[in-house]
Amino acid sequence: MDLSKVVEFAGNNGDVFTAQLVNFLRIKSISTDPKFASNVHEAADWLVAELKRIGLTNVVANETAGHPVVTAELIGGSDRPTVLVYGHYDVQPPDPMDLWDSPPFEPDIKDGKIFARGACDDKGQVFMHLKAIESYLSTGNEVPVNVKLVIEGEEESGSEHLAAFLEANRKLLDADVVVISDTAMFGDGIPSITTGLRGLAYVQVELTGPNRDLHSGVYGGAVDNPANALARMIAALHDDNNRVTIDGFYDDVLELSEDERATFRDLPFDADEWKRSIGIEDVRTERGYNILEAITARPTLDVNGLWSGYQGDGAKTVLPATAAAKISMRIVPGQDPDTIAELARLHFVKHAPSTMKLEFHKLHGGKPVLVNTAMPAMKAAARAMHDVYNREPYFTREGGSIPVVADFKEILGLDSVLLGFGLNSDAIHSPNEHFGLDRFSQGIETIIRFMHHFGHPEDK
Amino acid sequence: MDLSKVVEFAGNNGDVFTAQLVNFLRIKSISTDPKFASNVHEAADWLVAELKRIGLTNVVANETAGHPVVTAELIGGSDRPTVLVYGHYDVQPPDPMDLWDSPPFEPDIKDGKIFARGACDDKGQVFMHLKAIESYLSTGNEVPVNVKLVIEGEEESGSEHLAAFLEANRKLLDADVVVISDTAMFGDGIPSITTGLRGLAYVQVELTGPNRDLHSGVYGGAVDNPANALARMIAALHDDNNRVTIDGFYDDVLELSEDERATFRDLPFDADEWKRSIGIEDVRTERGYNILEAITARPTLDVNGLWSGYQGDGAKTVLPATAAAKISMRIVPGQDPDTIAELARLHFVKHAPSTMKLEFHKLHGGKPVLVNTAMPAMKAAARAMHDVYNREPYFTREGGSIPVVADFKEILGLDSVLLGFGLNSDAIHSPNEHFGLDRFSQGIETIIRFMHHFGHPEDK
Repeated sequence: MDLSKVVEFAGNNGDVFTAQLVNFLRIKSISTDPKFASNVHEAADWLVAELKRIGLTNVVANETAGHPVVTAELIGGSDRPTVLVYGHYDVQPPDPMDLWDSPPFEPDIKDGKIFARGACDDKGQVFMHLKAIESYLSTGNEVPVNVKLVIEGEEESGSEHLAAFLEANRKLLDADVVVISDTAMFGDGIPSITTGLRGLAYVQVELTGPNRDLHSGVYGGAVDNPANALARMIAALHDDNNRVTIDGFYDDVLELSEDERATFRDLPFDADEWKRSIGIEDVRTERGYNILEAITARPTLDVNGLWSGYQGDGAKTVLPATAAAKISMRIVPGQDPDTIAELARLHFVKHAPSTMKLEFHKLHGGKPVLVNTAMPAMKAAARAMHDVYNREPYFTREGGSIPVVADFKEILGLDSVLLGFGLNSDAIHSPNEHFGLDRFSQGIETIIRFMHHFGHPEDK
Repeated sequence: MDLSKVVEFAGNNGDVFTAQLVNFLRIKSISTDPKFASNVHEAADWLVAELKRIGLTNVVANETAGHPVVTAELIGGSDRPTVLVYGHYDVQPPDPMDLWDSPPFEPDIKDGKIFARGACDDKGQVFMHLKAIESYLSTGNEVPVNVKLVIEGEEESGSEHLAAFLEANRKLLDADVVVISDTAMFGDGIPSITTGLRGLAYVQVELTGPNRDLHSGVYGGAVDNPANALARMIAALHDDNNRVTIDGFYDDVLELSEDERATFRDLPFDADEWKRSIGIEDVRTERGYNILEAITARPTLDVNGLWSGYQGDGAKTVLPATAAAKISMRIVPGQDPDTIAELARLHFVKHAPSTMKLEFHKLHGGKPVLVNTAMPAMKAAARAMHDVYNREPYFTREGGSIPVVADFKEILGLDSVLLGFGLNSDAIHSPNEHFGLDRFSQGIETIIRFMHHFGHPEDK
């Protein structure tokens, strides 16, 4: 086989691949909002058709209790290693809508980037694997590894039914390694492979005071206000060192070694540029940790949503009956999402004022991840990246969560290679999410070369 | 003239009066929301037609830079005292809509009460004055006082254009006293006349951190979260004694005398019943003050609205770019709304974290009120209440604000008699606002008798 022909095919077909991606991105597959259930299904069906067209076999949109899991495979022979490609075809909600420069589901190509919800996370990235496979097949070559795909529709809403699906399909999904493109590179042109991910414990808290909204003049002064009370509770969740005050929160944290901290210091990270890119003047980290450590290797607590009372125009003089917050805790290796959610529950129960009724819900959770950098697939991935970028990739950690990585390890016994081509500036989960067409193209080439190196480790 | 015929007419026409009120309540005159501007105008036109039908003269819907002010008069002779009746035909927004048992603008009569937005505040109460006048005229009697009416459409959004209207129409509105029915009685069957009102300073605060919503995994840990930061700022607005921490906040407060505090203790107030009526177990007052003092004669600070980030279903892992709150301070005699709003602004500017950009807006304000209890109109009002309820009314304070009372004093030099028939349980500003038809009827009779006593102070 001639690898250069495969790479050349991919290079010559960038516009075709992009046009196909545009169609994929048009589908409003917002998994967390029940209103979009049929759109999520439509995206699964679209993928099934595309995978069949490319030439994969056993292509199925597997129904679950939630959204379908799409599976497919391409088995060349039992002498080849098997790669299980994981990705997701669902996307985050697009709001706030008014901050998008172009509609989130009408992809706009501008300045060499494609703007749309899901452009990077994760439709654009999972699609690179399909195009890598297509590049082999369309040039009359066999894919040098066996490939299995598992592409779910619930990643953005907690992958609720994926673990059960993995449990029920161990044999179908049997492989040597998982490959996932759903993370970011360290910087533009700076290749990296992610070796650590944070986990997540996401909860919702609601305080209820009076049995109805009250007139703030008639009752104000003696009725504890749920919005004020919730503000007190949220404020008290951090101490003066910006450490989380929940009892036991840090007990299981695997502290960074001095070596790891030294590696963090070596990374080409420009703090001023980072602050500029998100428009902030000052950071706020846990005392004693720098920005990179704080955003990738330390646990956090953030309010993701907050609401109470009147939010419309003008001045409504209401003393609201309820106030609520969505609160997520990013957790690090050593910590367990269920344990942390339970510690949070105990904290809220203990500290809720006697004037309030408390409701607490765990919305979802995911385990943190540490990847073994010595395994063959990691070496093949590093080599492929070096081929494309002409430099060694860094091994880095990321602050985000891909809870399924822990599931693959626990349920299928598989390690994961996190081969991502996003950038932190891609605005995933934000208005104007985008993906650079150069990285789309580099990603496809890297995956082509990864398949080659992993299938032929003896080759130069 | 035969007063009993007038009272009898009112008593016999309760059903007719109620049916008319239902039509008035159907009009969605929500002044604070620009979407309802035409409905507000419709309510003014409805009032004009009704006032003309009853027989008032010079009935005009006066255009202003905001919503119209309806005026009318009935002048019997220069030998009679002149009463200026003030009320408002606009209403609060009805949300949260899903907590209404019947639609807020489809009045529902149930258990002797009429349920609708504005039933008590203030359409139902201002309408009693019209029906009192109609009862005199329909029985062939002259109204024993000269009556002027000024009914505005912006009370619930800050009476922005009323002061200018009063300034421009001093002669038209010349009178001996203002009478306002927009307050509550001390309890059901316990008549009272309000002698003190709190004022209001209502502001909006917005914190902006990063220049866009961020992924809470990618950035969480180093980016100060506006929702968490706003919670800290709100929490810090009260100290451990539940006193407001804004510098200078209490400087101008006219402290209650020991006599006034003794009067507060004498009032037939059942704290347990009060708590039960709003479904709370525990109160939270400024240390050293009881419930009645805290809700009527002490200044407060309450969050009226709070919002940030994702409020939909499910778990969106966003680190929001902004967080905002509507915050109102009830102020007491001695305090000035502009001064307090400015002190609040200084407080927020001083305490905003270096990680945040702050926006601060004053939304509206109103002055507090203390009424002279010795004036003839107060005596006539007390006598009328005694006639109807067979007991002396209490002189009480209310925690709510009627900023125009201060305007009448400052601009027209007029004191106000606050002759209210609401109850604190009427759920004004809340879902299921209502007004008891018994109080509607008692209110009409009290106003008939007040007009009589004020016009004929020598009569028994």
